[in-house]
This record gives sequence, C-alpha cells and structure tokens, in this order.
Amino acid sequence: MERTRMQIIRSLLAGEKSFWELIRDQDGDLSSYCQEIGQLIEEGIIEADDQKITLTEKGQEWAGRNRIKPLQDIICSRCEGKGLVLQGIFQEVLEQFRQLTKDRPPAIAEFDQGFVEPENTVARVAFMYARGDLENKNIFILGDDDLTTIAAALTQMPRRIVVAEIDERIVEFITTVVERQGWKNVQVVKYDVRNPLPEELQGQFDVFVTDPVETIPGLKLFLSRCIQALKGKSSAGYFGLTHLEASRKKWYAIQQMILDMNFVITDLVHDFHRYILEREKFVTKNYPVVEKAPVPLPVPQVNWYTSNLFRLEAVGVPQPATDKKSSLGRELYFDNESYATLP
Amino acid sequence: MERTRMQIIRSLLAGEKSFWELIRDQDGDLSSYCQEIGQLIEEGIIEADDQKITLTEKGQEWAGRNRIKPLQDIICSRCEGKGLVLQGIFQEVLEQFRQLTKDRPPAIAEFDQGFVEPENTVARVAFMYARGDLENKNIFILGDDDLTTIAAALTQMPRRIVVAEIDERIVEFITTVVERQGWKNVQVVKYDVRNPLPEELQGQFDVFVTDPVETIPGLKLFLSRCIQALKGKSSAGYFGLTHLEASRKKWYAIQQMILDMNFVITDLVHDFHRYILEREKFVTKNYPVVEKAPVPLPVPQVNWYTSNLFRLEAVGVPQPATDKKSSLGRELYFDNESYATLP
Repeated sequence: MERTRMQIIRSLLAGEKSFWELIRDQDGDLSSYCQEIGQLIEEGIIEADDQKITLTEKGQEWAGRNRIKPLQDIICSRCEGKGLVLQGIFQEVLEQFRQLTKDRPPAIAEFDQGFVEPENTVARVAFMYARGDLENKNIFILGDDDLTTIAAALTQMPRRIVVAEIDERIVEFITTVVERQGWKNVQVVKYDVRNPLPEELQGQFDVFVTDPVETIPGLKLFLSRCIQALKGKSSAGYFGLTHLEASRKKWYAIQQMILDMNFVITDLVHDFHRYILEREKFVTKNYPVVEKAPVPLPVPQVNWYTSNLFRLEAVGVPQPATDKKSSLGRELYFDNESYATLP
Repeated sequence: MERTRMQIIRSLLAGEKSFWELIRDQDGDLSSYCQEIGQLIEEGIIEADDQKITLTEKGQEWAGRNRIKPLQDIICSRCEGKGLVLQGIFQEVLEQFRQLTKDRPPAIAEFDQGFVEPENTVARVAFMYARGDLENKNIFILGDDDLTTIAAALTQMPRRIVVAEIDERIVEFITTVVERQGWKNVQVVKYDVRNPLPEELQGQFDVFVTDPVETIPGLKLFLSRCIQALKGKSSAGYFGLTHLEASRKKWYAIQQMILDMNFVITDLVHDFHRYILEREKFVTKNYPVVEKAPVPLPVPQVNWYTSNLFRLEAVGVPQPATDKKSSLGRELYFDNESYATLP
C-alpha cells in the first residue's frame, strides 16, 4: 500500500489526473488502488471532482516531508517501454494487420473479451520472433480476440498455426481472412477451454500463445490446455497477466503453478499490453471497480487497462494440472479481484 | 538446441560475426552455444577463421529450406531494449556517475567481479525508481563492483543506503566518494557473504540490490542474506542473472528458491546488463569457454557478456534459506556451467 500511495502522489505532483489515467502510474491491483484513493481523500491529501483528482495543499506538504518528487517520465517513448520497435518486416505487418482487422468483431462481456491495441498484437509477435519462437515454428493460439493469428501469419514465418476459439464471431472472422489471404498453414478450430484438448492437438506445437482469464481456476485451465498442446522440453509459451485484477498473492500462486507444470519464466515485461475497452460502459455498467470507486467517475479518455507479458520455457515434459473436462461456470471469469469483469 | 541453432544461423545470414558478437544474438548458455557451433562446423553449415564465423553455401541452403530469414534488428535503439531512457534527473545522474567513477578499481577474478556499463548501473536505479523502490526507501546493496550505491545516492532520493562489500578496494573507493560528497545517509560495511548477516542489518530495509554469483549454493547464500535484510511483506529486491552461465534448468531451481523464500517475480528484463570484461584475458586465460570453443578465438571487440534483471516482491514474511555461516570455498563461484569464470 505504501508503494501505491507514493506512486499516486508523485503522479499527482506532476499534474492532475483522472481516476483512469492515474491507474497507469501505479502498480497496485484495482482493489488496493480504490482503497488507497479512499484513504487519501479521508486524510485530506487528495480531492476529486467529476473529472480529475488533484493533490491538496496538505498533500503537497506530505510529499515534501517524505521527499517525493513529481513523477519523472522515463518510459522510452520510441518503444513505449517494450524494448522493441516495429520496423522492417514488422512495420509492414502492422500496416497490413490494421487493414485486415478494421472490421473485427467488437469485444463482448460473455467471454470476458477486451482486445489489445493493434501495435501490441504485432509487438507480441515481434517479441516471439526475437526469442526464436516464430520462424518455422508450429504455434498454438488459445482464445484470439487479439487476432494474433493474423499478425503471426502475416509475417509468413510460422510453419503452422492452429487457433482454438470459443466465440463463433471470431472463428468466422479469422476463417474469412485466412481464406481470402490463401493461408494454407492456418487452421481455425471452435473450442471451449472447459473441454479436454482434442487428441490431434496434443503434443504438436513448439509455442503457445494465450491471453487467459485472471482467476486461478481459469488460468489453471488455460495454461493446462496450452501446455498439453506442446511438444516437450524447450517448447515455449506466451501469456498476458494483469496486475490490476491479480494481486501479488495471486501472481505467486500462478508462478508456483507454472513451475509445477515444469516451466520456467524467461521474460516478464511490465505493461506490455494496453486494452481497448469500450469506454462508456465503464461508467454505466455494474463493474466492481465502478461500485468501489470512492470518487465520481468520468468516461475514461485513455486505454487504462494493461497487462504484463510472460514468456515460459519447458525444462522437461510439460505437466498440465488437468486434462479433464471442467464444469466451471461464471467463476471461470470472476473472483473477488476481478474488478473490471462483470460477475 | 534447435532454437540456438536457428538464432545462430539467422544472425550469420545477416552478416559474418565473431565468436563473441554471435553470443549476443542467441539465448542459449555458453555450453550449448559452444556445442552448437561445433556441431554446425562438423555439418559444414558454418566455417570459421581466426576472426569471423560465416555461413557456408550449405548453410545458406539450410536456411532457405527451413525458411529462415536474416536476423531483423528490432531491439529499440533508443533504450537498447530496456524500455526506459535516462533523461531529466537520470541524465544528470549518469554524467555525475561517469565523473565520480572514472578511477574505479579494475575488476578482479578473486571475487568473480566484472562490472556493467555505467549506463546500465544508472538504468537499474531508474528502473527501481519507476517501480517505486527508490524514493524515501532504505536500500541494502550486497556486493557493489557496479557502484550502484553511488548512482542511487546521486539521485538524492533514497532515505538510507547500506552497502556490504567484501573487496577492500571497493569499500575504500565508495567510502572516499561518500565522504567527498558529504552523503550522511550512506554507510559502507566490509562484509563476507559467507558470514551471517550482522544483526543490526536484519529486517531494516525496503529494497535490496545484488549481482550474485551464478552457482546455486552461491545464489542461495546471496539471496538469503539480502532478504534477511528486508522489513517484510511488499519489500522488493533486484538481482542480475545471466543465461550464459545458467541453463534454464538452473533458472528453474533459482525460481523455485525465490518462491520458497516467499517472493514473487514481478519483472524479468532480457539482457538488461552488459558487462565490461577485460577483453584480452578472454583469449589468454584458462576460462572454460576458451577451452571449449571449437573455433580460433579473436580478442573480443564487443561487451558480449550480458545478464537479465529480476525484480522480486515479498508476498509474506521473507524466509531465507539459511542464516548460518557458510564454509563454501571456490565452489561459491564455480560450477560446470561457469564458462566465463576461472575455476
């Protein structure tokens, strides 16, 4: 909490912010963030109107006393903190990706969708390239509202891509693009993660990519299916995990799960993904973050929801936590840390 | 191995490289790298003279058959893949750091020293700043040939810094700078990591920083001392770990050790540090990498040795693996993966 408090205050020292903008300058989960904002108001350190949160005079004093300076902007503006840039082949891929996906299906809450900025989808593919996980590889993608399949196929580098997706609209959208582009090495499969992984997909792939739900049972299911699709030792995997709906305690449980599955974490990049969420609905619908927010909420003017990129590598035979059918219902998507997910 | 092979070949497709330059374009450990180079020569895919390694005609064919393209350079040139830039306060710190450290003691093999580029030391401090681990924090630094103490103190942000160091030369160097600068909040302690952590340093700090040895017993000792210095839940730690002298298998053991100590990994940045190693000695001295290299070795012309930056956060009470005196000798520094360390 102390860290969250300091990150909030130094951000406000640099200038007033909306509730949503301020989220990006702190590393706490949304529950801690809301609590800290409430606490700071109660202590008279910050104040809020229906647009902005500002530091009070008392807040300025607090900062001075604790020797906190205004937030220094040191995130690299060229790569936006990702460490890699979309140039050469990847610049072309980004342009084509924008073109091919401009009529993509909108995100729907039923499957906890919310896709990342197009640059992020292509950057994820570029990251895979840098680690040697793209060229000539068999790639398994589980859940693809980000349309990573299309970005990866556009590089013409993978040997084969299979994408497994539950949402009929996305299955159809990707299928249409694949047919129109004449990609023979891309296969689209309708698949519900609660069902066992079809036998013909088991043990076939060098790399998986998924952007799983944020609950522990949900993550266990997504990662288990993904690693069951892999060939074995040295196979790699990529997934996104937010800190906004997952406390460090939950991160800990997830990392133990990863090791238990016989994987090691090789890369973990802060806020690699920014999500394009429908902005209006975040003040009108019944999200926990809306209920818990201790200040009036303006319509967000920024993409405030972020996640971190994990890369994993198998150190031995992958050990899925389950290969059985799951009977999870809404608890697949929702737990008490899911502040930006509809119950 | 398959990944290492592909990364070597695509790098050579982009242009010939020295044995040392090529290391930077692949993610394998030095043992796998040497083996793969030997294998590729045997298969006639690459060839080497006393300066460069090149792809043969057969190698070109292999690349074509496996649809491998010349390595695309996508590492961000502005931040060199770190995601953050040294501007504002941190640019000033870098200039002062260069000035204050230009007569630093040279690295010596006795303590497996080898310090990182000055930009990397300051970038590490900037990274700590971004995560909220610098301002108003009590910081413990274990082993400091990188001189992180000086970079951190120059920001004027930490509340207190204690640096524990075994090498008399570095103790003296930092002490002299501290006295000359009049830093009242920096304390230098001569300390051998094999001894128990002095009681007055236990449970006192918000953050630790260390660049440990790469052996499992050595890492266990370094991390145990460091986390024993921390206050408790939410305290953070930073350390460097190379993939060049640590296989993924070793990474796995280290990550399990981290979880067992009650910490979670929050960030893991690829090749954050580049080391300034004495270049001549890497072809004249008895390093395993020199003995195992299957090609003639030129004097390195680049800083080829890198390590990754880990950030940890305590999810509960830190649990050091040991708080006892250790009787480790040279095996503190050396195991069968230590290819760039003198036995």
